[in-house]
Amino acid sequence: MKARVYVMLKNGVLDPQGEAVRHALGALGFDGVEGVRQGKVIELDLAEGTTEETVKEMCEKLLANTVIESYKVELSA
Amino acid sequence: MKARVYVMLKNGVLDPQGEAVRHALGALGFDGVEGVRQGKVIELDLAEGTTEETVKEMCEKLLANTVIESYKVELSA
Repeated sequence: MKARVYVMLKNGVLDPQGEAVRHALGALGFDGVEGVRQGKVIELDLAEGTTEETVKEMCEKLLANTVIESYKVELSA
Repeated sequence: MKARVYVMLKNGVLDPQGEAVRHALGALGFDGVEGVRQGKVIELDLAEGTTEETVKEMCEKLLANTVIESYKVELSA
């Protein structure tokens, strides 16, 4: 089975990487880019029967820094 | 309007970051993690009326390295 974890910086946390992308898009001539936030996607290939709770535990312990980042878990068969 | 861009390494391209995560999960006692791939999510805040074509152009020109990465665009209102 597969799981996808999305890790994004929480609102209010400064995102210099996203800011750099926004600036670069402007420099390339793309107008109207008002904001950019950059995060991570982690695709996990897991043994059958792994529960969402286990994946959330992985997030809490390793994948996300919950002080500044939020995460979302999506399981698929 | 908002757009989300997912950028992942293409299959066959070595992903040392994902490999490191897989190893670390094993070390933390999570069994059955067979593979991990890590990619990027980029959330864009765009002017109304920006087309999917424009966002794809952003990907081709800046957001993804299309030699080794593939991308997916999702628009929402």
